[in-house]
Amino acid sequence: MFRNDMPYVEVLSPEAIEIIEGGWRRLVREIGIEFMHDEALDLFRAAGQRVDGEVVYFDPDWVLEQVAKAPSEFHLRARDPQYDVTIGGRNMVFATVSGPPFFRVGDERRDGRLADYALMAKLAHSFPELDLVTMPVIEPDDVPLDSRHLDMLLTATRSTSKPVFGSALSTSNAEDSIEFARMLHAGLDLFVPGGDDDPRPTTSIMSIVNVNSPLRYDTRMLEALLAYAKAGQAVVVTPFLLMGAMSPVTVPAALTQQTAEVLTGIALMQLIRPGVPSVMGSFLSTIDMQSGSPSFGGPESAQGLYASGQLARRYHLPWRAGGGGLTSSQVVDAQAGYEGFNTLQAAFGAGANLVVQAAGWLESGLVSSPEKLVLDIEILRTLRRQFTPLEVDEGSLAFGAHQEVGHGGHFLGAAHTLERFRDCFYRPLLSSTENFERWTRNGARDAAVRAGEIWRSTIDTYDAPPLDPVVEERLSSFVERRRHALGD
Amino acid sequence: MFRNDMPYVEVLSPEAIEIIEGGWRRLVREIGIEFMHDEALDLFRAAGQRVDGEVVYFDPDWVLEQVAKAPSEFHLRARDPQYDVTIGGRNMVFATVSGPPFFRVGDERRDGRLADYALMAKLAHSFPELDLVTMPVIEPDDVPLDSRHLDMLLTATRSTSKPVFGSALSTSNAEDSIEFARMLHAGLDLFVPGGDDDPRPTTSIMSIVNVNSPLRYDTRMLEALLAYAKAGQAVVVTPFLLMGAMSPVTVPAALTQQTAEVLTGIALMQLIRPGVPSVMGSFLSTIDMQSGSPSFGGPESAQGLYASGQLARRYHLPWRAGGGGLTSSQVVDAQAGYEGFNTLQAAFGAGANLVVQAAGWLESGLVSSPEKLVLDIEILRTLRRQFTPLEVDEGSLAFGAHQEVGHGGHFLGAAHTLERFRDCFYRPLLSSTENFERWTRNGARDAAVRAGEIWRSTIDTYDAPPLDPVVEERLSSFVERRRHALGD
Repeated sequence: MFRNDMPYVEVLSPEAIEIIEGGWRRLVREIGIEFMHDEALDLFRAAGQRVDGEVVYFDPDWVLEQVAKAPSEFHLRARDPQYDVTIGGRNMVFATVSGPPFFRVGDERRDGRLADYALMAKLAHSFPELDLVTMPVIEPDDVPLDSRHLDMLLTATRSTSKPVFGSALSTSNAEDSIEFARMLHAGLDLFVPGGDDDPRPTTSIMSIVNVNSPLRYDTRMLEALLAYAKAGQAVVVTPFLLMGAMSPVTVPAALTQQTAEVLTGIALMQLIRPGVPSVMGSFLSTIDMQSGSPSFGGPESAQGLYASGQLARRYHLPWRAGGGGLTSSQVVDAQAGYEGFNTLQAAFGAGANLVVQAAGWLESGLVSSPEKLVLDIEILRTLRRQFTPLEVDEGSLAFGAHQEVGHGGHFLGAAHTLERFRDCFYRPLLSSTENFERWTRNGARDAAVRAGEIWRSTIDTYDAPPLDPVVEERLSSFVERRRHALGD
Repeated sequence: MFRNDMPYVEVLSPEAIEIIEGGWRRLVREIGIEFMHDEALDLFRAAGQRVDGEVVYFDPDWVLEQVAKAPSEFHLRARDPQYDVTIGGRNMVFATVSGPPFFRVGDERRDGRLADYALMAKLAHSFPELDLVTMPVIEPDDVPLDSRHLDMLLTATRSTSKPVFGSALSTSNAEDSIEFARMLHAGLDLFVPGGDDDPRPTTSIMSIVNVNSPLRYDTRMLEALLAYAKAGQAVVVTPFLLMGAMSPVTVPAALTQQTAEVLTGIALMQLIRPGVPSVMGSFLSTIDMQSGSPSFGGPESAQGLYASGQLARRYHLPWRAGGGGLTSSQVVDAQAGYEGFNTLQAAFGAGANLVVQAAGWLESGLVSSPEKLVLDIEILRTLRRQFTPLEVDEGSLAFGAHQEVGHGGHFLGAAHTLERFRDCFYRPLLSSTENFERWTRNGARDAAVRAGEIWRSTIDTYDAPPLDPVVEERLSSFVERRRHALGD
């Protein structure tokens, strides 16, 4: 968990924010949002919103009244309390890549396996820059589909004691995930409301619910949203907007649509259980209009992130940036470097509270890659330092060093330097400053090759975090029982 | 030339700025700055500053009085007026890499040649993202040293009609460069002061003078500074600070030293010729304290850039960011991508007026590379779009597109999309969004390979900008005459 105390990058003027405010209000009032789930429709109807078929036409002021019930910050439990995180405020929490079906190591690209899942979760456990393991870090094609969410939960839980995301593909998947969390945190209430000493509630598991943009929540996503909200567990409500496909082709239109979709989804959560942690999600990118392929890491994404942060703060919501280390690049090359850096720096500048896809994303999200994870860790380390405010005081001016060194000298041997040389500057993990001769002698390895060596040596020294055998036995039995019930 | 209308990233509080202000004042007053040139010392003495040996102890208020005479904006001529640039204000002007002895194409790394110089200047001419050609874009080892500056000037001038930097290695080199500019802009005054209709002066050539930090201007640099200032030509006064070597190991100390060095150098320029264009230079990076190697693209550089912009604006000076596409990487790999992106985005966020080393820099500045130039052009294109304010108005919200598409549809065929699809999104030059099958079929080329293809095809379609044969003959004769006089 990182505390970002730098000034926010804000690209929307107060007038622009008012125009977007007017825009989402008009959208929810006049075009409405489709909710493909009877229980959701009944709830909205009972709360006085106009329902026609599956489309809900909202009173925007009512939406904001509901949204105001969501906590602006909350705690999420890890199985090891040292890894508990707090989402909201000035905090930034980073999660692994989520969703890829393919796995790439070096030149090999193939279907994902459960062993790859364990590998990625172990890496996430090993690097302090990562706080959360997503679901799925990689889609494991070698285990049965219906019970796969249980294999992933168990594998991730064995590999890391950091928090693990729950599944959101159906009521049953969501309930399995919640039950898993209940067993993992046995003896604790799954949801603890905020109190006098700490107004922030605590949840035990979190999941991402994607909106089926434009302006639609489908049945499965709503099943999950309802299950998590009823259990008091956190949901990241995320419109996944590739402008040109799921939204119009201008950033302001996408922001307007994103706001309409997120706020109505969060209003539903608050209607189900007032005070349940609800995260405003954003995921804005573009379609390459020549090929129809999605495109990541570009300028529209960065602008969308900065603006999304401003909007989230307007509604006092913790928010998730879609800007992880996103790239369309097929391999860990220069494009992966600059595109990944761009979306990650934008997430920092925008003051995101939760950054999903922060490490390991390649090939427009189709590929999960441990080399890319190492590259992204380097970028995260750089940005954490870059977004730590400078300490400027008399001592930092080092006047004494100038007295010692004088004109035209050098500071390598100055007392001020010798006192500070170990940690005065950022120390890279992956970047090389080797001179050409040394670099050549050491095998002329580029950043991708070095990243491969780094993750392998990280795995070589990895120690599994201890898991109480009683808890593990209980979780394993639960998974076996559910697998059987699901017919796998 | 790009106009950057985005909000500045500002990392120094008003209190921090006051501490740095107090710091540079104390440095120039108590430790002083060494000026290894009698004429400079005489000028300072005559102006009432205390001179002891070659060290000048300044009254900081007097320094600021001199600095206030420098114009906050000025024009620099190109031989083709369409490429004239204005330095200062909200403008950003981008120049090529400067100084490398080595040239890398693909896997070949070798000494630089004059033909490489022509190649890089032609590329700079071809890409609208570049405004200026530096001296030297690459050190041409195949022409004699003493007259090399003339070969470079002539080669660059034949290759591009954009402005070309002058040499600053000695009085004679500087005077040759000024004479070259006089012949190139025949019939025009080399320096035109600002007037009632446009308060900004115009110069015909610009050069960079590096401070021999810490706190020293050496003889050769001062010779050049004096020659340019006397002729009313612009100088970029640049402390080149690798923290830990040429400055103490904290960013605030480096900023304080940079300010002391720059302001006293600019005070000298204004003493010689009040109103001469003087650019505040900054070049802040770090030393890898384990190996002693310089390190580029890291967090201290970015923070230093943001802070330098704040200081330059405090003194109403146009300023140069040392943040071009800097990297320590030996090749065009992921490291080159993220480090280059970081320093370039910081230059944009910091509101730099002049960005030297903006394209082509590799291996800590030892290598000039056309593939890296293409990579940096892609980053510049991205950032130009990213730093163009969003237009937010009713039309941009695309309400009509939502009416057309409805719930769960897609926008690819919407009228709003069809009207805008050609230029609604940034279109990359280098980045690939190809899907894996297509990318594989097309040869599985990474960004470095594609960059090589792009510069080759750019050169294939390059047309030399017309140069008046009379002017060319005059310039060639001048170069021959001077070459002979210099004994080469």
